[in-house]
Amino acid sequence: MHQVYIYDTTLRDGTQGEEISFSVEDKIKIALRLDAFGVEYVEGGWPGSNPKDMEFFERMKSIPLKKTKLAAFGSTCRASSDPQSDENVIQLLKAETPVVTIFGKSWELHVLEALGTTLERNLEMIYDTVKYLKANGKEVVYDAEHFFDGFKSNSSYASKTLQAAEAGGADTIVLCDTNGGTMPHEVEAIFKSASQLVRVPLGIHAHNDSELAVANSLTAVRSGAVQVQGTINGFGERCGNANLCSIIPILQMKLGMSAVPPEKLAGLTELSRFVSDVANLQPRKNLPYVGQSAFAHKGGIHVSAVMKSARTYEHIEPKLVGNSRRVLVSDLSGKSNVLYKAKELGIEISGNNGQASSVVNELKSLENEGYVFEDADASLEILIRKSAGDVVMPFELESLHIIIEKDANDGISHTVATIKLRVGDKIELTASEGIGPVNALDNALRKALLQFYPQLAETKLSDYKVRVVDGADGTAAKVRVLIETTDLDSNWDTVGVSENIIEASWKALVDSIVYKMMKDNDKNKASKRHVELRK
Amino acid sequence: MHQVYIYDTTLRDGTQGEEISFSVEDKIKIALRLDAFGVEYVEGGWPGSNPKDMEFFERMKSIPLKKTKLAAFGSTCRASSDPQSDENVIQLLKAETPVVTIFGKSWELHVLEALGTTLERNLEMIYDTVKYLKANGKEVVYDAEHFFDGFKSNSSYASKTLQAAEAGGADTIVLCDTNGGTMPHEVEAIFKSASQLVRVPLGIHAHNDSELAVANSLTAVRSGAVQVQGTINGFGERCGNANLCSIIPILQMKLGMSAVPPEKLAGLTELSRFVSDVANLQPRKNLPYVGQSAFAHKGGIHVSAVMKSARTYEHIEPKLVGNSRRVLVSDLSGKSNVLYKAKELGIEISGNNGQASSVVNELKSLENEGYVFEDADASLEILIRKSAGDVVMPFELESLHIIIEKDANDGISHTVATIKLRVGDKIELTASEGIGPVNALDNALRKALLQFYPQLAETKLSDYKVRVVDGADGTAAKVRVLIETTDLDSNWDTVGVSENIIEASWKALVDSIVYKMMKDNDKNKASKRHVELRK
Repeated sequence: MHQVYIYDTTLRDGTQGEEISFSVEDKIKIALRLDAFGVEYVEGGWPGSNPKDMEFFERMKSIPLKKTKLAAFGSTCRASSDPQSDENVIQLLKAETPVVTIFGKSWELHVLEALGTTLERNLEMIYDTVKYLKANGKEVVYDAEHFFDGFKSNSSYASKTLQAAEAGGADTIVLCDTNGGTMPHEVEAIFKSASQLVRVPLGIHAHNDSELAVANSLTAVRSGAVQVQGTINGFGERCGNANLCSIIPILQMKLGMSAVPPEKLAGLTELSRFVSDVANLQPRKNLPYVGQSAFAHKGGIHVSAVMKSARTYEHIEPKLVGNSRRVLVSDLSGKSNVLYKAKELGIEISGNNGQASSVVNELKSLENEGYVFEDADASLEILIRKSAGDVVMPFELESLHIIIEKDANDGISHTVATIKLRVGDKIELTASEGIGPVNALDNALRKALLQFYPQLAETKLSDYKVRVVDGADGTAAKVRVLIETTDLDSNWDTVGVSENIIEASWKALVDSIVYKMMKDNDKNKASKRHVELRK
Repeated sequence: MHQVYIYDTTLRDGTQGEEISFSVEDKIKIALRLDAFGVEYVEGGWPGSNPKDMEFFERMKSIPLKKTKLAAFGSTCRASSDPQSDENVIQLLKAETPVVTIFGKSWELHVLEALGTTLERNLEMIYDTVKYLKANGKEVVYDAEHFFDGFKSNSSYASKTLQAAEAGGADTIVLCDTNGGTMPHEVEAIFKSASQLVRVPLGIHAHNDSELAVANSLTAVRSGAVQVQGTINGFGERCGNANLCSIIPILQMKLGMSAVPPEKLAGLTELSRFVSDVANLQPRKNLPYVGQSAFAHKGGIHVSAVMKSARTYEHIEPKLVGNSRRVLVSDLSGKSNVLYKAKELGIEISGNNGQASSVVNELKSLENEGYVFEDADASLEILIRKSAGDVVMPFELESLHIIIEKDANDGISHTVATIKLRVGDKIELTASEGIGPVNALDNALRKALLQFYPQLAETKLSDYKVRVVDGADGTAAKVRVLIETTDLDSNWDTVGVSENIIEASWKALVDSIVYKMMKDNDKNKASKRHVELRK
């Protein structure tokens, strides 16, 4: 089987992306995850460029890796020095990694304008640096920066740079589309020319500036590349690097090649989300293979077909990459979406006696008002279970009162919510301050309910989103509030819509509490049943 | 020059994307923008599937388009009916669009399992429906759903479906990679086979489930496709549709083909952001060509090379697609940005006396707090002119008080804002109700100021957006409020940020009023000068 070696540069080129920054601890965590996932090479950083990267390599000296070879990245020596005395090259050796990757210039524009040296001297710098690193016992990866642009501008000179790296003893030569502007058919043609020039195994390093990094990487592999450089989630400078989370499953599932051990593939989604988490970035929902929407179906026709046979609208089985199918309920969907959702939630509703249709009608009318249930599974469950008479309201509101005060000084001086509610035959009146009216309301509601439902102490609002549904009416426009709540073992999302942001937030808050009660009741029933069975 | 016809389906397939939902007004706005941008076809919706889409087509009957042909989308008639009596087909004709697009099944799996009919009957449904629509004077686009999967599974049957559409008189036949699992080399091979089968011009409709939708669309074009279907920003079901914001510039700038009038290309970035705005989705920063990071340089080596010659690290000139270069974490570039912006606004500030640097520092600290000025030019102008001592505050706040009440009944019963402010040496105290606290505040503020500044009667809040800047703290998270205000001859955008939505809204409201005063003063000065000159 054609083996492709995956070279991950999330920790180096990935951090060139806007908003991406990893601490040394973060880098270690990610390196260990990539090792466990079975990636062949992990590029840890550029030791000569910043102290954080040097510290990472220091720390990694005492942390064993099972499968992955760690690579340190840097440039060829400068025009004004030789490798032995070049500070950048010295740092590369100090990193003590088995693999060293250096980049050199292939494009005369860069040699002349960016480096300000001669074409001849650049060839020496490549040859000398590779040779010196080989003499120091390293596996050397040579990154031919801007190879495709260089080849298009002066193919003869670009070719000589590869031959210099080969003559120096490079183990792999990687052709880089550094600016991301190369088309797949150009990659194919140029790759084939390059493989005639040198005998060293070739690799590909693509950027996504034309939304073609994955296609260009695959084209290179089909033209003979054995190494693919890229990053998890396609993180990287400008539009990002080639996305390994798409490339790896394609190589293994579509092209019948080998990239990581087959049993690891089911960990791909988890790996993707782990790296987003560490980067503190919201994972992109529509990421291929690993995104939350990658196997989400919204249209009614699609859902009813998927229920008959999943491959009608799924190009692979989601679980093979550790992802899962989701059915979205929206105004585009019909009865089949609701039935599917109910089944998934473990609720029995009938498709025949009108119950599903009445839920669909209620959904459509709510969605007309601006509700969206796709991201509010808990509110949807409440709605479906209400239709089955299966929801008990844990309290009744008597009255609610919010005061916001601001004086000439900066900021709001005072926000207080007062709430009066009834639980059974008991009345509770309480008040709470907050940062803003919704926060005060949330605080007051919890405070009032806590004595009746102590388990609410476990819950916490973990996300709060506001969206204007239709902006045309200025501040009187309708708003949709989405709330995420977390307790000890799960989280759930609820939604509220109103022209009044307080009312919309109130609805979402109430759903959040109703859902918590419902969930705990289900659990109690299940464990009671369990106890009875044991008796 | 090879002409490629762009077929936009943002309003139909785009809305299958999770979190994407457009009102009828939204759809009309987007259709008009696409028309102005020079897109050949706009698919407006599926009139038979929901009343919102039908309403859109009704409204469009009286709205003229300059260049774009509107298309209504639907399926072939059902197995159990003929086109004349099929409700879906009847609705398609009622939409009264010049173009009708219907999809039919190419994959026997779908015919047998999803439709539950015979292979033979499916061919009749395709032929009959196309023929009936042609007889009704329509330009007919036939979408061959799952063509690539169908061809791989039973090439002979898939071929017959295309021939049925051709025999019925289809004007264009579009090969669809509905599940998004097809590789570019397969697209090439299958496309070439298909072009041997029929003489009708072919098109491509690709999905991004393998991160290959752009590559597959380009491959199809290079194999002879003359129509490309896709969406703005790649919106769409699961991982999205082919992204027209990447495909259009590639066709025109990389492949030397024609897709939209050449002078329109510089409006691409604005179009992309407009559609994100209407969808109320944060635009993805790393989108190729149009993203905010697409030409953002972070690495020191890259920045210094780009300053010598931009094409060292930019594959195209950003302004050709209406985007711009950004240099991250660099004080120098920050200053030049501010100078550029000030010049654009016609404000004179000096780069030497520290004024520009102090604006940069204030901007950076505000951006750290969550401010974004890209969409709030009026707030930015106030900030720059404040540094020149050029802004007079039209009032001082003394105090502000908002009460919100709700009782056991549905909805909020009562929302009142009371405001006390000073203009010169006069104090005004007034109150106003509103739908929600921000609306009450807006009403009270205008009411208090109107006697002093009657021109405020001309202004109206035309848009109000709330975005949570960092969701991690639940209802105590920071929010950013963007307000758009309109008067007789212009509109402007202002921004406010705070953990308190009332405070954030207040800041944006105050900026909106300050800007109006500033603008009117400028106009008065200019016309006074004009009068003096005439004397």
